[in-house]
Amino acid sequence: MGSAATEVVDKRLLRGARTRKVVLERAVDIASLDGLEAISFGRLAADTGLSKAGIQTLFKTKETLQLAAVDHARELFVDHVVRPARSAPRGVERVWALLDHWAVYVSTPVCAGGCFRAANLAAFDSRTGPVHDALFRDHRAWLDTLSGELRYAVEAGQLADLDIGLTVFHIDALLCAANTALRTGDDAAVDKVRRIVSSLLVAPR
Amino acid sequence: MGSAATEVVDKRLLRGARTRKVVLERAVDIASLDGLEAISFGRLAADTGLSKAGIQTLFKTKETLQLAAVDHARELFVDHVVRPARSAPRGVERVWALLDHWAVYVSTPVCAGGCFRAANLAAFDSRTGPVHDALFRDHRAWLDTLSGELRYAVEAGQLADLDIGLTVFHIDALLCAANTALRTGDDAAVDKVRRIVSSLLVAPR
Repeated sequence: MGSAATEVVDKRLLRGARTRKVVLERAVDIASLDGLEAISFGRLAADTGLSKAGIQTLFKTKETLQLAAVDHARELFVDHVVRPARSAPRGVERVWALLDHWAVYVSTPVCAGGCFRAANLAAFDSRTGPVHDALFRDHRAWLDTLSGELRYAVEAGQLADLDIGLTVFHIDALLCAANTALRTGDDAAVDKVRRIVSSLLVAPR
Repeated sequence: MGSAATEVVDKRLLRGARTRKVVLERAVDIASLDGLEAISFGRLAADTGLSKAGIQTLFKTKETLQLAAVDHARELFVDHVVRPARSAPRGVERVWALLDHWAVYVSTPVCAGGCFRAANLAAFDSRTGPVHDALFRDHRAWLDTLSGELRYAVEAGQLADLDIGLTVFHIDALLCAANTALRTGDDAAVDKVRRIVSSLLVAPR
């Protein structure tokens, strides 16, 4: 291919990548507000001003689009919560850093409807299929992140021995409930989570 | 009206009431599985074998149908959780009775997809309108039921003093998370809730 032809392909790829990003950002906002089922090629075209046919060419099916939205939301969560917390020392301090960044993530909020995961997990818990699987894989990864830091904290003697599985279930339950409470005007929800988590993370005697 | 005419009207009303019940039971099942947005006249007609036109005549709009489903789910919850717990003495014992009946309600499960409220609250928390309002009115009523028993328990000296609002937020968060965990195969979820709630409901010294 000549350099002119290469440039045409490059521009097309770049345009495709840009379109993809615009569509996925809007898809994640819609899904955090109204759920993954509310994503449609028509609504995305109307909201972004892009052509419906163009969006369909990129994503083919609604399911592919939903899966791409779950992936994109996962990246946002990692970028805003998991990665920045890595600057805190491992163990208890990193658990608190995760909660601090999570509080900003749901309060800013990064996705228009708050926590993308919390908005969709309960709605998909009775279903089967790739979208359910992707959502619960993301949930599992988040629980594993918390587990890893709690285990480190216990092994390093930062925390009294605790049931890791139970504590992770407990903290995640509080975060999901706080997300819903924040959405419906309970501004004290994050403070409630902090108070309860403080009572769980006890230093060894 | 003659007695024959009265009988015709009576039969028609009875048939209307029966149809309403069949439709609402199915609507609550669908909404507990796939969310309130998944309720449609077409799907209900296909699932129940009733005519779509007949269902539309009864409920007029999708929103009226969704609101009737929220009401019906509320009645199921009261019948299976709140009312049977009233046979337990007020206070701590009734809180445990509520949790015991709730465990049966979500594990049996009464609605095909488990807890109707938990399946829909997070999905509707960013919206406005009558369906959002009805869901959160139901949620408020449930939180008030828990609050009332906890307050009684503290005042009667059954429990050490506690922050009622915080404890109710805490217990409800665990129940919602347990419902999702149960749907996705974590059979230990109810036991996790019991262990955590036991640690919250402490007798006075």
